[in-house]
Amino acid sequence: MAEAERSTLAEVGEIAVLSRIFPRLPESDAALLGPGDDAAVMAAPDGRYVVTTDLLVHGPDFRWEFSTPEDLGWKAAATNLSDVAAMGARPTALVVALAAPATTPVAVLESLADGLRLACDELAPGCGVVGGDLSTSDVFTIAVTAFGDLEGRPPVRRSGARPGDVVAVAGELGPAARGLRLLFEHGRDEALRRDAHAVGRQLRPAPPIALGTAAADAGATAMLDLSDGLLLDARRLAQASAVDLELDALGDDELRGGEDHSLLATFPPDAALPAGFRAIGRAVAGSGRVLVAGREFAGLGGWDPYEDWDGRLS
Amino acid sequence: MAEAERSTLAEVGEIAVLSRIFPRLPESDAALLGPGDDAAVMAAPDGRYVVTTDLLVHGPDFRWEFSTPEDLGWKAAATNLSDVAAMGARPTALVVALAAPATTPVAVLESLADGLRLACDELAPGCGVVGGDLSTSDVFTIAVTAFGDLEGRPPVRRSGARPGDVVAVAGELGPAARGLRLLFEHGRDEALRRDAHAVGRQLRPAPPIALGTAAADAGATAMLDLSDGLLLDARRLAQASAVDLELDALGDDELRGGEDHSLLATFPPDAALPAGFRAIGRAVAGSGRVLVAGREFAGLGGWDPYEDWDGRLS
Repeated sequence: MAEAERSTLAEVGEIAVLSRIFPRLPESDAALLGPGDDAAVMAAPDGRYVVTTDLLVHGPDFRWEFSTPEDLGWKAAATNLSDVAAMGARPTALVVALAAPATTPVAVLESLADGLRLACDELAPGCGVVGGDLSTSDVFTIAVTAFGDLEGRPPVRRSGARPGDVVAVAGELGPAARGLRLLFEHGRDEALRRDAHAVGRQLRPAPPIALGTAAADAGATAMLDLSDGLLLDARRLAQASAVDLELDALGDDELRGGEDHSLLATFPPDAALPAGFRAIGRAVAGSGRVLVAGREFAGLGGWDPYEDWDGRLS
Repeated sequence: MAEAERSTLAEVGEIAVLSRIFPRLPESDAALLGPGDDAAVMAAPDGRYVVTTDLLVHGPDFRWEFSTPEDLGWKAAATNLSDVAAMGARPTALVVALAAPATTPVAVLESLADGLRLACDELAPGCGVVGGDLSTSDVFTIAVTAFGDLEGRPPVRRSGARPGDVVAVAGELGPAARGLRLLFEHGRDEALRRDAHAVGRQLRPAPPIALGTAAADAGATAMLDLSDGLLLDARRLAQASAVDLELDALGDDELRGGEDHSLLATFPPDAALPAGFRAIGRAVAGSGRVLVAGREFAGLGGWDPYEDWDGRLS
């Protein structure tokens, strides 16, 4: 087969695939030694680093009927960057492990690399890909591990909220879930016509990455990434902090919609909220409950991949 | 369904699964903040850290007909620890992202966690799991990212070999590939009867992790992890260093067998090889070739998951 005709992973081979992908990936300012050896070497100037990992699997986590490869690369980066930001850290690097069917066109991985680069450039400039792995699988799977630099700050945990703290959110609540509903109901093209913003947020989440360090600098007592819906994630923060959270009246999409990757944080009552955060309630003495407009919500309203994924929606 | 009858991931749910797995995982001495928040916080005492990632996919990388869940956990840890060691670093931590069919018994993940713990305890004491992710997939997939501490050493790259250096290996050459051949030919039980050692090395690789830092301390000029076979990996080192490697006469299994995760390193001619390393040749001025008993090997003899995996051997 002539070189120009080789277009799938099986035809091109791992080494040539990597040589086509690497130039498209973003570079990390913190890499002392980047891809190409057994391991990368990263700078950790304050003697610590933050690390988180997330898996996106075709079916429960994304679908080719909805997402382009560039969308997937963007989402894989954005969801992990958001977890780093939620600790009060600046994202510095990603490693990306990918398993794809051998029949996958190399162009798909090139576009995925473009998506990783676009997300890093837009959401966390200076953050780049410092390593990875490729394997084959009938199910397209991407595992991203992300790193961050606390730059001397103490990490902002889930457990630090105190009675009297202001509860605040940065980023939108609801559009990603609304977008997913539209995609399931109408398919990509019609969904985009009906609500391009919501569908865009589902396919390319826009977490307020820079506000993670801003919140930490403003004295945030607790923070987390809203991946599973405000109610479920607020309960996690409330339980970790052993307080109740009293939230203002909010719509159902705002309360239950997952995957926005906005930031939920608590601040001391006298703190000036960083621009981009808005108050949505307060912490009170309690035992891990979340109350909305005075009423306790018993159901979690979140997303459990094992319980909610029935395998039929493919 | 009664609690005691719930045994699969779908029945038990993500949060309960995690609560059953976490107590079985090894703890990391370097974790400043372990699992349970958006991200872990790790100590990097010398201001740097080493990072590598590897994916194991059911089919090309392991099979349940050959591996127990404990074997898989062991192998997922060992292969990543080996990449850290090959930089001259001490492994400190792992994060583990896992995608499993919803029908998977929770006991499978518990045994997998046991395998991760056994490998860390045996190969890299003090190294532990500091984070993870769970998702569902029809194809069982495990992505491990590993971290290491250079403890003030410069990293040992692939590119530092110089003419005159001694080429040396720590660990065995060949048994893992011989074990895989036996597994395919005879199945697990009979393969173990015929050569328990080789099959054991395939299912639970025993990389000489502690010799990575020993090699660095002894002045190793280049090093890598032998995952794809000596010929292929030696060529990588030769090409990165722009030297030729003249190897002694070795058997075909030793030259071509992959997955032993032994260490290949070069040392200055006057260096004392650390105990556990044996000389197998020398580096000479050249252009990235590997010669065995004076003869150049053109074929790589290694393993490319995209080219070699035909999807039929399930």
